[in-house]
Amino acid sequence: MSAIRVPVVEKILSANDRMADENRSLLDENHVFSINIMASPGAGKTSFILQTIKHLGKELKIGVIEGDTAPVTIDADKITKAGMPAVQINTGGDCHLEAAMLSDGIKQLPLSDIDVMIVENVGNLICPAAWYLGTHINLLVASVPEGDDKPYKYPNIYRGLNVMIINKTDLMPYVEYNMDYFRKGVEMLNPGLITFPLSCRTGEGVDAWITWLKAQVKQYRQGK
Amino acid sequence: MSAIRVPVVEKILSANDRMADENRSLLDENHVFSINIMASPGAGKTSFILQTIKHLGKELKIGVIEGDTAPVTIDADKITKAGMPAVQINTGGDCHLEAAMLSDGIKQLPLSDIDVMIVENVGNLICPAAWYLGTHINLLVASVPEGDDKPYKYPNIYRGLNVMIINKTDLMPYVEYNMDYFRKGVEMLNPGLITFPLSCRTGEGVDAWITWLKAQVKQYRQGK
Repeated sequence: MSAIRVPVVEKILSANDRMADENRSLLDENHVFSINIMASPGAGKTSFILQTIKHLGKELKIGVIEGDTAPVTIDADKITKAGMPAVQINTGGDCHLEAAMLSDGIKQLPLSDIDVMIVENVGNLICPAAWYLGTHINLLVASVPEGDDKPYKYPNIYRGLNVMIINKTDLMPYVEYNMDYFRKGVEMLNPGLITFPLSCRTGEGVDAWITWLKAQVKQYRQGK
Repeated sequence: MSAIRVPVVEKILSANDRMADENRSLLDENHVFSINIMASPGAGKTSFILQTIKHLGKELKIGVIEGDTAPVTIDADKITKAGMPAVQINTGGDCHLEAAMLSDGIKQLPLSDIDVMIVENVGNLICPAAWYLGTHINLLVASVPEGDDKPYKYPNIYRGLNVMIINKTDLMPYVEYNMDYFRKGVEMLNPGLITFPLSCRTGEGVDAWITWLKAQVKQYRQGK
């Protein structure tokens, strides 16, 4: 008797990760560079997106997907008012976005007309870290008033980041915040992580982020 | 044939809620009034507990259980330094405390020697709301710099509150925050919720909270 050939499935992907790969393929087919933005509630994700649109909106078309636990369109309305297409996802109380939710959202955006897609995840420093969405980069908006000990208390989310923003630097004079202690904590979890301290309120520091993002988009297009 | 009597279980409690009831019984046996503190990361839960100890520590003995996603003792060390017993719970990455975790923690505290037990839940505005721990009241520490739109975006957590703190009022001059808009959102979810705006940094407003808490502890003892 000859041996029967047994099919071996080498890499089992979860349903979420399969759908995330489909999201990525759809984005790549349309040449759309995509960013998953995570943060605590109130760190300034929407303000950061609005600043990015303000500085980059004349050069690049930016589509935004807003994730919220409740059926509100507060953030999506702000994006639309800034002249960019936005889609609101209501997670129905869930604490994070999943690839399937994003898949539904992506199809509502005019993809062929968009250069960059920004996903604003649910405000949560824990759960979103565990869900791959298929976007090209993960970005965290940290904020000065939430304190300098966050990397020590919520380490998981920092490990999967490609870039980090430290927002609300204008509040530095009014709170106790040791930037070196914060960055040391992040460095242990994600050595060399590229980081942009800035203030969405005053606009200080935003230019450096915009320059970096433009370079990323250019590199993405050349690499295709 | 006479009808067979079928046992009907009228109220099925989840494993979590059964354990929460056990927690409550243990606390009541020891005459310990207990508070579950929830908040976004960095809203100032630990500072709020430290202020409470500072103002009330000479009259009442306060035991603290600190919940964190990582194996750190940053917050528990601050409590111990302030002269009160503290226990650190590491959730192993989980986004909330559950009654079973609290059960393990309670047993580490010198219950017969304690008047008030404060539980500092994991910093998260979504998941902790769904888990009853067995404590006597649920308290939320909201904070000014996290923004005035939070009740509209994270409604669930406000519904189960007995009392709310609005912390970091000293930052009001430096951020865009409409207190009326915030309170209107909370009022829709939890009409008449007792609320204390205060600043743990300057101490302003803390007295009113302390007076209320002392009245609650007194009422609890009389009601037993």
